[in-house]
Amino acid sequence: MRYPNGHSYQPTSKRPKKRVQDNFAKRGMRLEDMINAANNWYNSKDLAVIHKKPTPIQVVKVDYPKRSRAVIKEAYYRQASTTDYNGIYKGYYIDFEAKQTNLVKHFPLRNIHDHQVKHMAACDKQGGICFLLIYFKSLDSCYLYPFSELKIAWDNYQNGGKSQLSLEHIQQVSYPVQSGFRPRLDYLKAVDQMLNR
Amino acid sequence: MRYPNGHSYQPTSKRPKKRVQDNFAKRGMRLEDMINAANNWYNSKDLAVIHKKPTPIQVVKVDYPKRSRAVIKEAYYRQASTTDYNGIYKGYYIDFEAKQTNLVKHFPLRNIHDHQVKHMAACDKQGGICFLLIYFKSLDSCYLYPFSELKIAWDNYQNGGKSQLSLEHIQQVSYPVQSGFRPRLDYLKAVDQMLNR
Repeated sequence: MRYPNGHSYQPTSKRPKKRVQDNFAKRGMRLEDMINAANNWYNSKDLAVIHKKPTPIQVVKVDYPKRSRAVIKEAYYRQASTTDYNGIYKGYYIDFEAKQTNLVKHFPLRNIHDHQVKHMAACDKQGGICFLLIYFKSLDSCYLYPFSELKIAWDNYQNGGKSQLSLEHIQQVSYPVQSGFRPRLDYLKAVDQMLNR
Repeated sequence: MRYPNGHSYQPTSKRPKKRVQDNFAKRGMRLEDMINAANNWYNSKDLAVIHKKPTPIQVVKVDYPKRSRAVIKEAYYRQASTTDYNGIYKGYYIDFEAKQTNLVKHFPLRNIHDHQVKHMAACDKQGGICFLLIYFKSLDSCYLYPFSELKIAWDNYQNGGKSQLSLEHIQQVSYPVQSGFRPRLDYLKAVDQMLNR
């Protein structure tokens, strides 16, 4: 479970694994790639405009070689102050974080950062649609877990309560993301279900 | 007018200049800093959640020194595919680009990129509030120029029409951003005027 590059929850698909289904995860596509593909498709069909925000990087040293473009020679990854994805869909402001896990029975809340929950709370207060996309890699299942639930679980966790969401609980309160042909991860259908509830 | 680092429209305030007013530009604050300060203030007062997106950077080489964090050793600036700022205000999706100029009589449309106009057009179609913040540094004046107007001027420009917006035209169709104490650049007041029109 150690990732030498310091990234967690972006496991490569090198280890062959028995899969219950094989809908989303064909050809080792990562959750981020599937979301980006979905966003490109939504954008191309005028269905929504949702983008992943670039990773914030602190640039320290830049070289300007003659006749070529600037080369960044020293820089550091910074922690994002918001969630990874936002945009607009049918007039709604959409804001979410996507997390992938290899676990099969629960999702650990330590994968979420307090500033992300605070950011989503602020967006929720302004009338935005906020959620977590949780992808269980081994089960090849993806769930739209609403912010209203995350808020309860997070506050409870911060006050010494459970540090993880059980799969059962997630299945009870989430909107399942169905796999499709195009896009493979059609998460806006789950958003529709949440909006129409 | 040449900037050796390849950045345009972020002039430093080294050259002493006669100013008509001195409302916004005190102590050489750049437009970006003023917008960030406004966004921090809006966020802290629960008025809006609007952030500048990080500059997209293509990382090529990363070092992982022992016992310290990753150091990016080679990377390049990429062109952003969207505008710089987005977020939510009173339930509205907000999306804008901010531009500063030293000119006093017009704003050149070459400061805007086609993909930014396309991005705003897509957001506009979904019901988002899109605009340009144009800051005339020498005049110390800032205008909220609505996307509906930008679209007309841009299409005209792409078809061989005028390559710049005259200050007179900007003043006629924009919502002026008044300078305030906190935040100094209270651009959401101009958004309110546009929404209430």
